[in-house]
Formats: sequence, C-alpha cells, structure tokens
Amino acid sequence: MTAHSEFDSDTTVTAASAGVYDATLTDRWHTPMQSPNGGYSLAVALRALAHTVGAATPDPLVVSAFFLRRASPGPAQVHTELVRAGRRTATGEARLLREGQEIVRLVATFADLAHSRGRSVSLTHAPELPPPEACVPLGGGRRLPGATIADRVDMRAERAAGFALGQPSGDPTLTFWMRFADGRDADPMSLPMLVDAALPAVLELGERGSSTIELTVHVRAHPAPGWLLCRVVTRHITQGYHEEDVELWDTRGVLVAQARQLALLPETAD
Amino acid sequence: MTAHSEFDSDTTVTAASAGVYDATLTDRWHTPMQSPNGGYSLAVALRALAHTVGAATPDPLVVSAFFLRRASPGPAQVHTELVRAGRRTATGEARLLREGQEIVRLVATFADLAHSRGRSVSLTHAPELPPPEACVPLGGGRRLPGATIADRVDMRAERAAGFALGQPSGDPTLTFWMRFADGRDADPMSLPMLVDAALPAVLELGERGSSTIELTVHVRAHPAPGWLLCRVVTRHITQGYHEEDVELWDTRGVLVAQARQLALLPETAD
Repeated sequence: MTAHSEFDSDTTVTAASAGVYDATLTDRWHTPMQSPNGGYSLAVALRALAHTVGAATPDPLVVSAFFLRRASPGPAQVHTELVRAGRRTATGEARLLREGQEIVRLVATFADLAHSRGRSVSLTHAPELPPPEACVPLGGGRRLPGATIADRVDMRAERAAGFALGQPSGDPTLTFWMRFADGRDADPMSLPMLVDAALPAVLELGERGSSTIELTVHVRAHPAPGWLLCRVVTRHITQGYHEEDVELWDTRGVLVAQARQLALLPETAD
Repeated sequence: MTAHSEFDSDTTVTAASAGVYDATLTDRWHTPMQSPNGGYSLAVALRALAHTVGAATPDPLVVSAFFLRRASPGPAQVHTELVRAGRRTATGEARLLREGQEIVRLVATFADLAHSRGRSVSLTHAPELPPPEACVPLGGGRRLPGATIADRVDMRAERAAGFALGQPSGDPTLTFWMRFADGRDADPMSLPMLVDAALPAVLELGERGSSTIELTVHVRAHPAPGWLLCRVVTRHITQGYHEEDVELWDTRGVLVAQARQLALLPETAD
C-alpha cells in the first residue's frame, strides 16, 4: 500500500452515531455515465460495515449489493446493522444514503481469510497473458469524457479490445491485467470495487454498457502484491438481462475473487 | 400446477400485521442434516416478500439470501420491507424468524418477466441428456434417513451419480432432470427452492455436503411446463470455501435460472 491511496481516502467513513457513518462520495470514480461507479459506492458502505462488524472478522467473504438509484458526488451516510456474529463469521447489512435516498443496500458475511483452513481444490487455472509491461491499455488509450475512474484503475491486455477500436469482437469475454493506478495493492476490502470497475464484456457485443441491478462478490484470498489478472465473461442475455462473471487472480495464480452481477442493457433500463 | 401442491401448501404465509407474515416450516423438506432445506426457508420468506412488493412485479428477478442459522420445523414469522418500487422493478427485503431468531435474510428485486423485452443472445446451450423416462434416479435410489426433501423433488440422470455408488467421480459436475415429485410445474417463485434442492457437486469429490452461506439466484424466464434440466458445477474450493453454480433450463432449451452459492465444507463449518 502506498503512503497515500486514492481509494483509501475516497472511501473514508467517520462514525457519527451508533451504526451511522458519514462519508463523502467523490467525483473521482465516475463511469462514462458521469456518476460514481457502483463498486465505489459499495466500497464506502462496506468500509462502514467492516467497522460495525469488528476486527475479529476483518475480511468480506461474500457481499451482495443491490443498486437502487444512481449515486452522485457529495456527502453520504451509511447505516449499518450487525445481523449475526458467529464463531468464525459475522454477517451485517449496510445502506448507503445520499440526500436521504437509499443508493445501495448490501448484506455481507465477514471472516478472517488469513486464518481460514480446509480443503483446497482448483479445477481451473488463471488465464495466461504476456506480462503487464508487454501489454497495452485495454481501452486502446481512449478516454471517455468524465469517466474519471479510468484515471484510478489501470487495465492492460495483450491488445486493445475490439470495441475500443470500433470493432466489437462478438465474443463477450475480456481478459486483462488490472490494478490501482496509484500503485495501491489490492486487498479483500478493495476487491469488490475492482470487480465492478472491470470493463463489461457486453461492450464486445456492440452494447454501450449496462446497469447493474445486483452484484455478488466472493472474496477467496488475500491477493499477493502487484497486478491482478481479470477475466470477464457474459454467457446469457435474455430480454435485456444478463449476467456478468468476473474472476480475479493474483500473480501467484491464486483465485482471489469471483463475482457475478445481474445487469440490464440500457435500452431496457428501469 | 396440480390441484394440491406440496410446495404451495408448505410455503403458505398469512398477513399478521403491516409487513409481518405468519408461516409454518414443515418437516417435509429436510436435507440429510434433518433440518429444512435452505431453499425451502428462502421460498417461504420470498413468498411473503412477493405479497409486500405487490402484483405489478410478480416475479423474483434476482434474490440474494444469507443463511444465518439452521432452521427447524414449526411456526415462523417473516418481516418484510419494500425498499424501492421503480417503474419496472421493485426491491424488498425479508427476514425469516423462528423462535425469535433470524434464520434467513434475503434481498430481492422483482419484475414482470412475462413483459420484459430487450435483446437476447445465448452463447451456451442446455446440457443434453436422454429423455427423463429413459433416466434413472440421480442418487441411485438410495434414500438417506430423514431426508424428506427426496420425496418432494425428483432428480434423474443418464446413470446414477458416482458418489451414490460409493465411487465419487472426482469431477464436481452433475447434470440431471429435475421436477417436483407431485407434478407441480416450476415457476419463477419456486425456481430458487429447486436451485437449492439440487444435489451438491462436491459429493463427487467425496464430500458429504456443505453449508450454504449465501445463495444468489437470477430468474430469467417463466419455465415451460414439465421437467427442468439442471447442471451443477463447482470449480474452486479454497480453504473449505467453494462456489456452486446451478443452471436450470426448460424443455424448450431456455435458460430459466442461473444461481451461485458460497458454501463451506462441513469440517470447517462455522
């Protein structure tokens, strides 16, 4: 972790009263829709919830977030609830409010991943890519106006994605390296944000993007320092609704996060 | 739907006061752990929530359920909250309590799947199996004592699963036909229960089962009447934690539900 991390600064929460935290959503994590990335709002709510849940279970093991309204930059509040504290896991809920309206509701189970044990079996492997130094920007260096998140998260691939060159490949699969632009290493608390920052694979079907309804992230391990390998895949689009699966692997070849979201293509957005 | 459906009877909820419903968990959906299947408890909570959310958005589009404690048969209450009603979707939360303790917490977004529209693209296909009449019981006809859910849900495969013959295949993938034993057709409200009733693929790794921490179900379409094709896959087991992916397809080859759970192998259960 660097001395000054943009992610850590911009997800700071301050206890206001029992179970209530103050935060400020910045304009530095905007998507091309020019509003804060859902994963960023999620990360702010999750950070408040981690305080409520306590230090014995520091790592989000599974997070499910429902995105209710588009966020906007400015002061926000997070209301948290400890739902159940067990011997090895604790579950809580957080609601992020902006101007009194609920933006994100999430439920998460926390654990201590550094002390988890049990059987491990890996039946798939990390994708293979040339080293990050030999890769190029996934988006072809194109910078959409207002999409400030592109300055916060780097994504590099063997070649620029088809959609970035105006030629969507027709195959909604993207494989690339990913990290914070300021060099902050990923950790369990930031993996859900990184998962949602990944470019959507439906761009390769000629879509402009899509709106996340719900995102579930399983955090599996503390990542090794450095770049993460990311694979994004969509397999089923039914009447505008589609899943997006994201896997994040570290440079040791360890799966560190697995995520799925249900999203809606924009022409049918609610 | 048959005149008398066990699922419909056993998930009946009665409005008690604003946002509170009474229900009775029966002993007819027990897993081999001799307690109610998580998907059954989920279905009771979801049914109460559907009442709260209202008839304009009758279908659960995405459900995320956290399983907090083991359920037991007897009277239960469901507390519901309408979180946001939008133009085309509505989101709510439900908490299932048994003897005052919270068993399941779920958040769900509802929609009207019969009137959804938008682009459809299918990049994979339903698994292929001989017709159900030519298949045999997935579990080899073995009936674990107390596992009453086996009398409620039929599962048939080309041949009995390896684990059922005492020879786990080592490949945590199961493909089979599935339906309610009493002939009730599946619908969006029952798909989350069926997803969780599916036998876990880790049985083929020699495990005895696992405990679900969180289950997310995406319902994609109203299924055609009759059997459903089910594919269950686990790809990553890390320190006892594993995902389980379930897809359900109808006989038209339409993907009707896609689900993922995070579960913990029993030797490391919380």
